[in-house]
Amino acid sequence: MLEDKNPKPVSEISELGEFGLIHHLTDKIKLTNKSSIKGIGDDAAVLEYKNKQVLVSTDMLVEGIHFDLLYTPLKHLGYKAVTTNLSDIYAMNGTPKQITVSMAVSNRISVEALEELYEGMLLACEIYGVDLIGGDTTSSLSGLVLSITVIGEAEKKDVVYRNGAKENDLICVSGDLGGAFMGLQLLEREKKIFNENNSIQPDFSGHDYVLERQLKPEPRKDVIDMFKELSIKPTAMIDVSDGLSSDLLHICSQSKVGCTIYEDKIPLDFTVVNLANDFNLEPTVCALNGGEDYELLFTISLDDYDKIKDQKRVAVIGHITSTEGSYQIVDKNESVHTLAAQGWDSISKQ
Amino acid sequence: MLEDKNPKPVSEISELGEFGLIHHLTDKIKLTNKSSIKGIGDDAAVLEYKNKQVLVSTDMLVEGIHFDLLYTPLKHLGYKAVTTNLSDIYAMNGTPKQITVSMAVSNRISVEALEELYEGMLLACEIYGVDLIGGDTTSSLSGLVLSITVIGEAEKKDVVYRNGAKENDLICVSGDLGGAFMGLQLLEREKKIFNENNSIQPDFSGHDYVLERQLKPEPRKDVIDMFKELSIKPTAMIDVSDGLSSDLLHICSQSKVGCTIYEDKIPLDFTVVNLANDFNLEPTVCALNGGEDYELLFTISLDDYDKIKDQKRVAVIGHITSTEGSYQIVDKNESVHTLAAQGWDSISKQ
Repeated sequence: MLEDKNPKPVSEISELGEFGLIHHLTDKIKLTNKSSIKGIGDDAAVLEYKNKQVLVSTDMLVEGIHFDLLYTPLKHLGYKAVTTNLSDIYAMNGTPKQITVSMAVSNRISVEALEELYEGMLLACEIYGVDLIGGDTTSSLSGLVLSITVIGEAEKKDVVYRNGAKENDLICVSGDLGGAFMGLQLLEREKKIFNENNSIQPDFSGHDYVLERQLKPEPRKDVIDMFKELSIKPTAMIDVSDGLSSDLLHICSQSKVGCTIYEDKIPLDFTVVNLANDFNLEPTVCALNGGEDYELLFTISLDDYDKIKDQKRVAVIGHITSTEGSYQIVDKNESVHTLAAQGWDSISKQ
Repeated sequence: MLEDKNPKPVSEISELGEFGLIHHLTDKIKLTNKSSIKGIGDDAAVLEYKNKQVLVSTDMLVEGIHFDLLYTPLKHLGYKAVTTNLSDIYAMNGTPKQITVSMAVSNRISVEALEELYEGMLLACEIYGVDLIGGDTTSSLSGLVLSITVIGEAEKKDVVYRNGAKENDLICVSGDLGGAFMGLQLLEREKKIFNENNSIQPDFSGHDYVLERQLKPEPRKDVIDMFKELSIKPTAMIDVSDGLSSDLLHICSQSKVGCTIYEDKIPLDFTVVNLANDFNLEPTVCALNGGEDYELLFTISLDDYDKIKDQKRVAVIGHITSTEGSYQIVDKNESVHTLAAQGWDSISKQ
């Protein structure tokens, strides 16, 4: 994984030129959504949303800050760049429909490498039913920069904001947390070993789950589908990109409420717990602070508890309180701690 | 102009943190358009376009490639980054309504500098009636990278594509061309002199026009308004970002037609002609190849000629022919040349 296994002949971007490169990377793209009227090839793409509301979100990924090409296969990078954006639309209870992709690339990247990046992006588009409708490709003096804007739709009545959580609402989260963070720790450790001695190949055996969580996260479209099936509309929702603490506090502060969550309710995969222990890390702290899990964190009315209680993909981890600014976590010993934007403050016991 | 005149105390970005920085830069933003339902502050912005078509365009600007902070005031950079994007929506005969702004910034840029950048962006938003509804701010290991996505609207029947030009249609362009290119030549010359001897201050007297064309271009909203007033719908349209030749060839190839334009009809400002002569450049070549003028290049039916002929802001520079792939320019001596994507080929006389 930490070496260049690419035996293909390498072509330089300069051979194609900007227009040639864009054409080469995008000429096979077909539009599949009814709302995509015109994609790449004019001054702007043309969309049509009729009676739906339009959701727009954008993210920028910078080499050396958000990803390390030493251990991130370009196809995975493309896939993740798209799926993490789609996650923002699902977090509004909407359906992503289109993306635009802008990127700055240095001359040292080959056309084949960009093809891999596009392959990953288009795979994510295919799986989640999204059209790539436009973008911009330009030069970079240093590393790769990717900027993706995702456009989606929702019925007005279905849109879920961060600010609707009410007292007594249940706090729920999909899947499990901390895996993406542990995947990153593992990759960084193996990178360090590899950098110290190039002949030592990384040992990733048994760690597929956390590596996948870090390198190829899937947005929770299935949870949005579940809401429809069960006729649930969350009162507030956000995707877990910065860590459970930080993202829960976004919901609480925008909803002007407080919260209490329970350490023993936070969903953790056993491989995450084991690996955290290996690293001498507290698994709960990995979930609270880790980020990049792209799970959905949401609140529902108590009345909806019966609908959701048997859903294995969702855990109820606490409830909303009326005390604005009071954010609490109850640990396994039933001690109460203050939850801060970056995890919990184990000093300030209340 | 080529020095740091900023006497204000300088704050570091790290003092604010990412969320603090975004809040600091965007907390005064008010939404003004009916279609902007929710802006910054949730997982995605929410828009509502009802019966209009939605236009989306995106551009990425990279320090060292698209701009040089030595001679580009940050307020101008912000202004230009927005207006050049809006130009893409006008080029569809639409009205821009929202933008998202993503940027990667290095730690060496101060909070005050980012405030100036935002001031320029928000000034452009105010003048052109556009809401800033979202974005992403992140770190960069090297220079500044800006990615802007603009969203606009148009009635379905009004959208103008690049592919509608028909035989005998008139080729028209707004304003005048080559100015932005000459502004860049001037700035680059003065930068070179300044770099060789820091005590020599640049001499920009009498060059306001070309500098403004380069540093603070205005998109041609007024031309779109004129179309409405005169009940004209162009048959094809593009904005002149790459140069008259390249952009006219986009219209022709997408419309599967040819063209003939006339050198003496290409609109040139006298200051551009004079400065080009000073630089030993052919003014026509500056217009054909220069780019960044952000004028509108469009074709209209011959039937609309009477409506447009007295409009000073528009020049008719030629006509569309039926010969696909034949792109001609007739020079001042009535010799015919082939027009190529990068200017004209003075060798291959026909």
